[in-house]
Amino acid sequence: MSKNEAAPRAGGRAADALRPVRLTRHYTRYAEGSVLVEFGETKVLCTASVEEKVPPHKRGSGEGWVTAEYGMLPRATHTRGDREAARGKQSGRTQEIQRLIGRSLRCVFDLGALGERTIALDCDVIQADGGTRTAAITGAYVAAHDAVSWLLAQGKITASPIKDAVAAISVGIVDGVPLLDLEYTEDSACDTDMNVVMTGAGGFVELQGTAEGVAFTRAEMNSLLDLAEKGIRELLAAQKAALAAA
Amino acid sequence: MSKNEAAPRAGGRAADALRPVRLTRHYTRYAEGSVLVEFGETKVLCTASVEEKVPPHKRGSGEGWVTAEYGMLPRATHTRGDREAARGKQSGRTQEIQRLIGRSLRCVFDLGALGERTIALDCDVIQADGGTRTAAITGAYVAAHDAVSWLLAQGKITASPIKDAVAAISVGIVDGVPLLDLEYTEDSACDTDMNVVMTGAGGFVELQGTAEGVAFTRAEMNSLLDLAEKGIRELLAAQKAALAAA
Amino acid sequence: MSKNEAAPRAGGRAADALRPVRLTRHYTRYAEGSVLVEFGETKVLCTASVEEKVPPHKRGSGEGWVTAEYGMLPRATHTRGDREAARGKQSGRTQEIQRLIGRSLRCVFDLGALGERTIALDCDVIQADGGTRTAAITGAYVAAHDAVSWLLAQGKITASPIKDAVAAISVGIVDGVPLLDLEYTEDSACDTDMNVVMTGAGGFVELQGTAEGVAFTRAEMNSLLDLAEKGIRELLAAQKAALAAA
Amino acid sequence: MSKNEAAPRAGGRAADALRPVRLTRHYTRYAEGSVLVEFGETKVLCTASVEEKVPPHKRGSGEGWVTAEYGMLPRATHTRGDREAARGKQSGRTQEIQRLIGRSLRCVFDLGALGERTIALDCDVIQADGGTRTAAITGAYVAAHDAVSWLLAQGKITASPIKDAVAAISVGIVDGVPLLDLEYTEDSACDTDMNVVMTGAGGFVELQGTAEGVAFTRAEMNSLLDLAEKGIRELLAAQKAALAAA
Amino acid sequence: MSKNEAAPRAGGRAADALRPVRLTRHYTRYAEGSVLVEFGETKVLCTASVEEKVPPHKRGSGEGWVTAEYGMLPRATHTRGDREAARGKQSGRTQEIQRLIGRSLRCVFDLGALGERTIALDCDVIQADGGTRTAAITGAYVAAHDAVSWLLAQGKITASPIKDAVAAISVGIVDGVPLLDLEYTEDSACDTDMNVVMTGAGGFVELQGTAEGVAFTRAEMNSLLDLAEKGIRELLAAQKAALAAA
Amino acid sequence: MSKNEAAPRAGGRAADALRPVRLTRHYTRYAEGSVLVEFGETKVLCTASVEEKVPPHKRGSGEGWVTAEYGMLPRATHTRGDREAARGKQSGRTQEIQRLIGRSLRCVFDLGALGERTIALDCDVIQADGGTRTAAITGAYVAAHDAVSWLLAQGKITASPIKDAVAAISVGIVDGVPLLDLEYTEDSACDTDMNVVMTGAGGFVELQGTAEGVAFTRAEMNSLLDLAEKGIRELLAAQKAALAAA
Repeated sequence: MSKNEAAPRAGGRAADALRPVRLTRHYTRYAEGSVLVEFGETKVLCTASVEEKVPPHKRGSGEGWVTAEYGMLPRATHTRGDREAARGKQSGRTQEIQRLIGRSLRCVFDLGALGERTIALDCDVIQADGGTRTAAITGAYVAAHDAVSWLLAQGKITASPIKDAVAAISVGIVDGVPLLDLEYTEDSACDTDMNVVMTGAGGFVELQGTAEGVAFTRAEMNSLLDLAEKGIRELLAAQKAALAAA
Repeated sequence: MSKNEAAPRAGGRAADALRPVRLTRHYTRYAEGSVLVEFGETKVLCTASVEEKVPPHKRGSGEGWVTAEYGMLPRATHTRGDREAARGKQSGRTQEIQRLIGRSLRCVFDLGALGERTIALDCDVIQADGGTRTAAITGAYVAAHDAVSWLLAQGKITASPIKDAVAAISVGIVDGVPLLDLEYTEDSACDTDMNVVMTGAGGFVELQGTAEGVAFTRAEMNSLLDLAEKGIRELLAAQKAALAAA
Repeated sequence: MSKNEAAPRAGGRAADALRPVRLTRHYTRYAEGSVLVEFGETKVLCTASVEEKVPPHKRGSGEGWVTAEYGMLPRATHTRGDREAARGKQSGRTQEIQRLIGRSLRCVFDLGALGERTIALDCDVIQADGGTRTAAITGAYVAAHDAVSWLLAQGKITASPIKDAVAAISVGIVDGVPLLDLEYTEDSACDTDMNVVMTGAGGFVELQGTAEGVAFTRAEMNSLLDLAEKGIRELLAAQKAALAAA
Repeated sequence: MSKNEAAPRAGGRAADALRPVRLTRHYTRYAEGSVLVEFGETKVLCTASVEEKVPPHKRGSGEGWVTAEYGMLPRATHTRGDREAARGKQSGRTQEIQRLIGRSLRCVFDLGALGERTIALDCDVIQADGGTRTAAITGAYVAAHDAVSWLLAQGKITASPIKDAVAAISVGIVDGVPLLDLEYTEDSACDTDMNVVMTGAGGFVELQGTAEGVAFTRAEMNSLLDLAEKGIRELLAAQKAALAAA
Repeated sequence: MSKNEAAPRAGGRAADALRPVRLTRHYTRYAEGSVLVEFGETKVLCTASVEEKVPPHKRGSGEGWVTAEYGMLPRATHTRGDREAARGKQSGRTQEIQRLIGRSLRCVFDLGALGERTIALDCDVIQADGGTRTAAITGAYVAAHDAVSWLLAQGKITASPIKDAVAAISVGIVDGVPLLDLEYTEDSACDTDMNVVMTGAGGFVELQGTAEGVAFTRAEMNSLLDLAEKGIRELLAAQKAALAAA
Repeated sequence: MSKNEAAPRAGGRAADALRPVRLTRHYTRYAEGSVLVEFGETKVLCTASVEEKVPPHKRGSGEGWVTAEYGMLPRATHTRGDREAARGKQSGRTQEIQRLIGRSLRCVFDLGALGERTIALDCDVIQADGGTRTAAITGAYVAAHDAVSWLLAQGKITASPIKDAVAAISVGIVDGVPLLDLEYTEDSACDTDMNVVMTGAGGFVELQGTAEGVAFTRAEMNSLLDLAEKGIRELLAAQKAALAAA
């Protein structure tokens, strides 16, 4: 197999194909928004909780806040990982991911229109097969949308503070071939890995590319972005369809 | 309504009836045992992970170990709770519950027959409506059983170290009436709350009764134990049925 | 020696006998209540501190709070244990015990009659020979009573918020024989261990039975409760006598 | 001023100009590499320490490791920040940055050629005026290079494990105008902020773009990358000149 | 009252008089040395534990180690203090004191003659009325001596590693008058406070003087040292007498 | 070489000579006071930050506060030390030093005249060659003075709250010879080590003497204090000269 001929993907998936995407709303009962998002075997429960308070830096500002926390069940992965609560601190990776989710969602929110309250997004990985942070962003948007619908239904706000949709996908180069939506084995083997967060209008919100071992060229980056744009458009359609259902 | 006439239970449930119990095996892919246990709206994911190491106090003993950790997703409950990993420590309640689960499961294990390895049980509450610790014990047994079957299939052990089944239920007195399997609203209102852990052979493994406000009599305790025994027999049957399925 | 014939107890103690119980009031000077409780060689210093504030969940409620903390001096035991302050966290066992003490004492308090203040009970084990948590509850009651007398003497309250006495004892089955008030070597060897907390009126406040290795039957439980009731009646008498002294 | 006409930059700096860059080697005495890097008023002390041990995941692998830690003196900024050591934990931002520095440097190292030892890079911000993480990467490379020279001089290795140079710069869009090397006031005001890490050969190692409020287009991203490439070429030249000096 | 005429001391104590000193050996059962030391109302339990291991920096050195930990029961003081184990860290004051005790004791030990083992000194304040750290050092010496006697009796060492005795006292200037052995109210009121640690041979081991508000002169320091030497000679005699008893 | 004939000091320094002292004001830009203090190769950055708030125990008192924090960059020393922020806590040594600096500075401040605000002194060791705490105190005084000048210039206070100058030096006995201002190799080798903090008026503020192995006599102490007084007078002159410069 030449360097530029990648191993066939699991299930015969095309290089530019997403894994099956499922967005199950109302997955749990109590949260104002609760969505199980699945990218193939990656499963993340995203809940959106409305809290009638804001962090200190927003108090008295008239503006609200959108924040995110991320966690992984100890056996979401092939080998059991430490429970962060037992170890007494969140890893750098966890903090990096939850900051990314928070920024991505805030980017499509008009915090003034939200009013002085918080939407707390909890993204907990039930099963991990690559792409958990991008699945989390994609699912958290739907959960946040349901929480906003609840606020509207309750009469707490009269117009939606959501300005646009937002979704995310990973792309990477494996054996020289750009691939969309990496699963775990691909992610481990890839030379370059990029997470792309994009709005409904097609603007980038976050873009994080990392070379694993070998630096990547601008041409490679461009082909990855092409793939990512294609994938995110499909995710945005899936979000829309999920939200259109009763 | 007189003191001894309790409010009718949700869904017309009888005082001595369990909520619908579901045990879904193979709920996630990677763990050697993975069971979603549901007691009505209480849902706990129990995974059993085999680890080829033991804690320091067992090293070189030839014996294995069975341990448990417990967690609750922040929005498993009516109002969002702090994420313990973010707060940097597990609450006393969490530690108390995970110690209880660990002791309960160890009681039915022959640690010598397990060999010098650990079965780590992770019990994560996806949705909480009362009875999470008893559901966790009941589900963890099935997950542990699947992990043992995996060890047998792998040829790592030749005989099962499981000596008996184990299951658990909560009972309590609400408005003077003994009730089986309390759901959240009943648990909040109850005078006395008891968690009972019992083996297949009918012996008690753990018994934790707590008066909430008013002390309870020995007669009340006896009627609670009668209820608990009835409920646990049904749970043991449900475990057996689940394990009998392919 | 047959299975049902236990080794004679240290000092020729009968199976249903408590160790010598001593309750020394005013053991230290500053606390509103300060009691050294001794169950044989187990020695626990229980202080009750009155604090004119309540935890957040009671603020503005008009009700008070009773809380407990538990600690063990590093060399209270046969081999030196880690200092929890140095290690940076309390063990699960410590938290379990201090929650038990707190619940047990609150059960005999009318928190409304206490007024919006806290009685903080500190139970520090000077020397441990089994039964530290039950000694702590028994001594903490006397310390709390002294703190209430101080509140009355100061005119801060006009009627006692204490509704009843409370005391606790451990019981267990060693080599098939039910024993009252286990000392350390018995506790290590026992099959079943139960801690019972009871009020002056004879109601149960807490009941925690744990099988060590072998599950216990309901008949065994009943004989343990008989023993516990006998022991607690003696402890209640000892508390009464201690409080009657000047 | 139109949206696309930015305020003139401090000191009349052109949109595509770096601030004055200074790389002072041998800044402190003990470290195997010690470099003060200045991007204008941003000053970061980068030390490289050689340690004859590796983290657990590399033990026995024959490979070495390159790692980084990042810190900021409390009064490096306009208002005093908490000391992370006093607060007892590193912020998410700190961890994110030190992970970025570590990955960036590892990308140009042949860990096998380094041998089973660690180069620990400490990047401490003495004064912060924007771009601290990019200055840190740029300075850490020079410090790491000096540590490698020391290893060669000591005869501990016979060939350099450094495969290429690496440097980093920030770019951003302020009032619609793409700017190179943002200082603090520009960083606070910018719509989009991108950190770019590039090798001597011109490949990307890391690329992190974040929209602040408004998503950015692919065209904007391309103009930012053009700026970044220009700036990094100048930084690579400055590194080369610094290392050529005695 | 003129500046140089201090208030009479409690109980008519002379300026150069110690409070009553009591050293009760064998205060608890399990420790190799266990001493309750009382300086008036200050009561500190000092236990010495022999551990057959040494900290990392002594492993393989053939030398032993002497270390100390210090704690205060929450209600040892007039108002209840936080429990350090509950708060999750030891205060700076606690660490300062335990480092002082450790250094003071190590100064009279021949660590080589001790052999590769540790004597761990736990000093826990039961009641505090000023001078807890000096009482702790004075009592810890006696406890350490008992632990050494135990080591000799066990045949683990054949000659005592103790080179000299060590004791400590506080002195201070209150209203211009130098006082020996400050109790709490004097300590709070004093201008200058000095802790002096001295050996049996009369050499200083530690000397820590602190001005509270007003700096002190060398003449004042000299009069304080005169007082301290007198007091420590009496403490050394009390230690000798205690150790001479059976 | 006889016991009382010390090895010649580095650079031919006399036993009673300070290392070259440099006090560089305005070392960084943002702090109200910022001083790099150098005692030979020991370099400490001292910043003074004015904060318009006070700690809880001073709120509403009308008085201000002066506090200090101390840190050491990981590679300030010969071998790399752990980063305290990464380890999650400050060492006992660090806390001891920052408490010493805080007390020393408060001793020359009229906290009432400062008004209800805090001067926070951050002392960060860039390079350590012995005497970091005494350099820190000496430099922190100059930084605090600059912060007070800023307060006066801003019109926030109308009279200086500084009552006197304060400086500090270490002295020690090496091979029987008393030496002023120990550098690292001397500090490691010394029998006795003393840190002395003195005011402009010649009073002692702090005096901390520690025997390393061999106790010291009062005569030795006196010769050390003579040396310290000489050294501190020179430091006070250096502070004055630095503050006299524009």
